[in-house]
Amino acid sequence: MEAAQAVGSVPILEAMGIRVVEARPGFAAADLPPEPNVNHFGVTYAGSLFSVAEMLGGVLSLVTFDFDPASGGELAGFVPIVKESTIRFRRPALGVVRASASLSDDEIARVRRDALATGKGEFVLEATLTDEQGEVVASTVGTYQVRRFG
Amino acid sequence: MEAAQAVGSVPILEAMGIRVVEARPGFAAADLPPEPNVNHFGVTYAGSLFSVAEMLGGVLSLVTFDFDPASGGELAGFVPIVKESTIRFRRPALGVVRASASLSDDEIARVRRDALATGKGEFVLEATLTDEQGEVVASTVGTYQVRRFG
Repeated sequence: MEAAQAVGSVPILEAMGIRVVEARPGFAAADLPPEPNVNHFGVTYAGSLFSVAEMLGGVLSLVTFDFDPASGGELAGFVPIVKESTIRFRRPALGVVRASASLSDDEIARVRRDALATGKGEFVLEATLTDEQGEVVASTVGTYQVRRFG
Repeated sequence: MEAAQAVGSVPILEAMGIRVVEARPGFAAADLPPEPNVNHFGVTYAGSLFSVAEMLGGVLSLVTFDFDPASGGELAGFVPIVKESTIRFRRPALGVVRASASLSDDEIARVRRDALATGKGEFVLEATLTDEQGEVVASTVGTYQVRRFG
């Protein structure tokens, strides 16, 4: 699956208007528009902020690890899943919010090794959410696994 | 604002199909249907699970504290906000998921006291998310504040 398809495959992410703006091995970023995510205080709803950050773990995994059996991917049959996530809200979010997250080459190599050796590679991904002025509105720390599926 | 209106006032919560099923001082519960929250693995998306749990903090606050200036509410001019939340995913969520959370009478009294004394009453709310078989699919721990607004 392509990273851009990751949003389209989850209807509620598409309903939020989330758009992947960059996705390459070890890095992913996505934008969240205000509408329809604005709450009754006129700022972006907490659950939408959580979602645009959380989904980066899936997007980043899809472009970093090769899950595709058709291409003989070494992690064919594995899927990324989220185990736990913490979000801290720093300030009210107005306008388009960008979430971004990165994973180092060393971490990527370790996750791949662990996944192949044990069927499960776990990693922690920190995402930062900024407004159009570059101010941090929220941050997340998520624990993900790439796991052998089924 | 009535608790049922809390969902309607945030378009994306309405888009998720979230429905408040019970709301009284110290307790709130809401249901999340599978559609349109199902992800590409056929289970309910993490961000929707987060949202149905997170919004309980607002719903519970609205029915527990009197924010209404028209009724001379003692917390008139205060609003509930979320500061931080952690969600743990326990098992894949299928079917309708119910989230529920409660706050003890002692905690309610303390939050009210703190809010009146300092302009800010903070509380921790634990929510449990169960499937139709009563199995826990996820749990959250959120930190909220009722704060003087503006």
